[in-house]
Amino acid sequence: MRSPTANPAEKLLFTPGPLTTSVTVRQAMLHDVGSWHFDFNDRVRFIREQLLSIAGLSRADGWEAVLLQGSGTYGVESVFATCIPPDGKVCVVTNGAYGERMIRILQHFQICHVALRSPESEPPDLHLLDERLTADPDITHIAAVHCETTTGLLNPIVELGRLSRRHGCVFVLDAMSSFGAVPIDFTESGIDVLISSANKCLEGVPGFSFVLARREMILANEKHARSLSLNLADQLRGFDKNGQFRFTPPTHTLLAFEQALKEFFVEGGVAARQQRYQANHAALIAGMRQLGFKPFLSPDVQGWIITAFHCPDDLRFRFTDFYQRLSEKGFIIYPGKLTDAETFRIANIGHLFEADIRALVAAVADVQHEMGFDASRIHQAANPLECFQAVPLLL
Amino acid sequence: MRSPTANPAEKLLFTPGPLTTSVTVRQAMLHDVGSWHFDFNDRVRFIREQLLSIAGLSRADGWEAVLLQGSGTYGVESVFATCIPPDGKVCVVTNGAYGERMIRILQHFQICHVALRSPESEPPDLHLLDERLTADPDITHIAAVHCETTTGLLNPIVELGRLSRRHGCVFVLDAMSSFGAVPIDFTESGIDVLISSANKCLEGVPGFSFVLARREMILANEKHARSLSLNLADQLRGFDKNGQFRFTPPTHTLLAFEQALKEFFVEGGVAARQQRYQANHAALIAGMRQLGFKPFLSPDVQGWIITAFHCPDDLRFRFTDFYQRLSEKGFIIYPGKLTDAETFRIANIGHLFEADIRALVAAVADVQHEMGFDASRIHQAANPLECFQAVPLLL
Repeated sequence: MRSPTANPAEKLLFTPGPLTTSVTVRQAMLHDVGSWHFDFNDRVRFIREQLLSIAGLSRADGWEAVLLQGSGTYGVESVFATCIPPDGKVCVVTNGAYGERMIRILQHFQICHVALRSPESEPPDLHLLDERLTADPDITHIAAVHCETTTGLLNPIVELGRLSRRHGCVFVLDAMSSFGAVPIDFTESGIDVLISSANKCLEGVPGFSFVLARREMILANEKHARSLSLNLADQLRGFDKNGQFRFTPPTHTLLAFEQALKEFFVEGGVAARQQRYQANHAALIAGMRQLGFKPFLSPDVQGWIITAFHCPDDLRFRFTDFYQRLSEKGFIIYPGKLTDAETFRIANIGHLFEADIRALVAAVADVQHEMGFDASRIHQAANPLECFQAVPLLL
Repeated sequence: MRSPTANPAEKLLFTPGPLTTSVTVRQAMLHDVGSWHFDFNDRVRFIREQLLSIAGLSRADGWEAVLLQGSGTYGVESVFATCIPPDGKVCVVTNGAYGERMIRILQHFQICHVALRSPESEPPDLHLLDERLTADPDITHIAAVHCETTTGLLNPIVELGRLSRRHGCVFVLDAMSSFGAVPIDFTESGIDVLISSANKCLEGVPGFSFVLARREMILANEKHARSLSLNLADQLRGFDKNGQFRFTPPTHTLLAFEQALKEFFVEGGVAARQQRYQANHAALIAGMRQLGFKPFLSPDVQGWIITAFHCPDDLRFRFTDFYQRLSEKGFIIYPGKLTDAETFRIANIGHLFEADIRALVAAVADVQHEMGFDASRIHQAANPLECFQAVPLLL
């Protein structure tokens, strides 16, 4: 049994975005609209307002939602391009590929930075971070990833935010795959800038990212912006001026997102989506464990968005074969992205329900039977701890 | 009478992109696909190959088509971010807003540059350009816009390319709103890098741009790339590695574009599209002239993509009112973007046919009758010539 609205001929995506959307979200893209048209501007305004409301923020308190063409990474880069002053120094708290990507962006911009690395299976060492921030008063910004999609680990944003505030830093959070399905209290977490994307837990299609931040934060360093396309301040001033994107927006993606937001509120907002995804995740873990598969993370740091499973250490298991057979049965899973362990990943976000998870697990069982591997035999991998590893500065 | 495939309930877009697409192009977006999936990679490969074939280029000769998430401007910025060495100097040949935008990008990157400006109604002064290139051997790149969407003017790319080659420069061409509907001979024009976008004459929906250039040109300065998201070399290496985008691609936009390309070839390629747009343009000019409207450009520089018309100098004409009334009748036109003259614009690209143009002109006649203005009375505007105006260098 599949989602009530799913078309059985379509493969279901158990991927972290692009993901399976509702038919009605996709149907919203059947219209061509002018990007200069007032009706379209109203829709953009609606989207910007609703994003703030989901976060519990308001323009009256100085907050803005800025939409930006491109993928989620463009949104993260736009924050570094626009909000870090020339003499700023960023401490990136990282335990996965998306934290590392932040470092690559900073390298391209030749922005002074330092990395606090923890193993991909562990949350950051907050004590070490505290020490580091005390020892290095030049650090102006702390950047972290909320749900590290590499593993599915949920980083402790309240604690990170508290440390950031205590040391007078700006806290930049990549909440790409958490926003909308994990409660985020901006006040408690002291988040100054949050970045997320259309094609994650709000269940739109890919094409733009968005940044939530205070106006003053976005505009403070606009003279020093390192890119025109990714100039968040200029983008905000464009919306101020006439409600429009400065450059051609992905109109169809925005229509889909408007519909996705309406369906998000009908479902019951963050709480309802969290509940559905948690139920999906519980069904996934239970089903996969029963087949012998072992999750990479321990349950105390595992979020309910995406789960990395160890690849069986069995010659009869080959990921590409496993993937292909599941695909033929209508289920698309995701490869691993870990540096230290062979994994594959299954996301449970998108327009997916417990019945879809059960159908996936049944298909995995069939494929396991066909291939004959033992899922419980796993590799023993090392996880080298490299805290505060020196990052070459290009300046 | 409207396009055979158009839905009468939909407004027709006479805008330079987003534009009116075929119903079948939009229907291609009704599917969610995984961005890691081999079937999707095949589609991306198909798109990249077909873009080269439209340009008469091939990978065997070292050419590559690199797709990049975001609007057309992102594509232009990616070229400047990736292909200009630290000691490069760009001469921007400009006669409109899109040439000026190139200058803004160069300013953000603090890349040394100079502008050769001509009035918005005139092609560049090639003699002056030749002199300037002779006098300043530091100039390494010439950048120009093919069809300047500000006015619809077609710049002389063969002559620009010849000058560029004679002075040993790299020729970068923004062919955003011409590629696919204006024949472009890479050899004759000496184009080294061409940038265009999904939602223009190839009649896809907005969400990505593409760059055509030789591999060696894309990779030569990759160590000095000024952005990660807009790093064209890294993007190419991503496609090399596994046929995938480095970061989440706009999957639905790509499915629409694949369909749009198929329809482009069925129609008969560049020649057929040029013929249809030229017929559209001829019908537009004839119809609007009959109502008294005056095109901004003289016919010898006017292309067949988009036309700027003078706003009537009549108190009974207000653009917003004019626009709104046409919109209510189902026709979306475009505002002007000129610095020196009050204009509005009508594009005739997209899934539009002569019957659509005639329907638009009939609606304009109705609105003119309702509003009672005299379209033939126009403002007399000055066009200050500012050649080689000094541009403040930020370095």
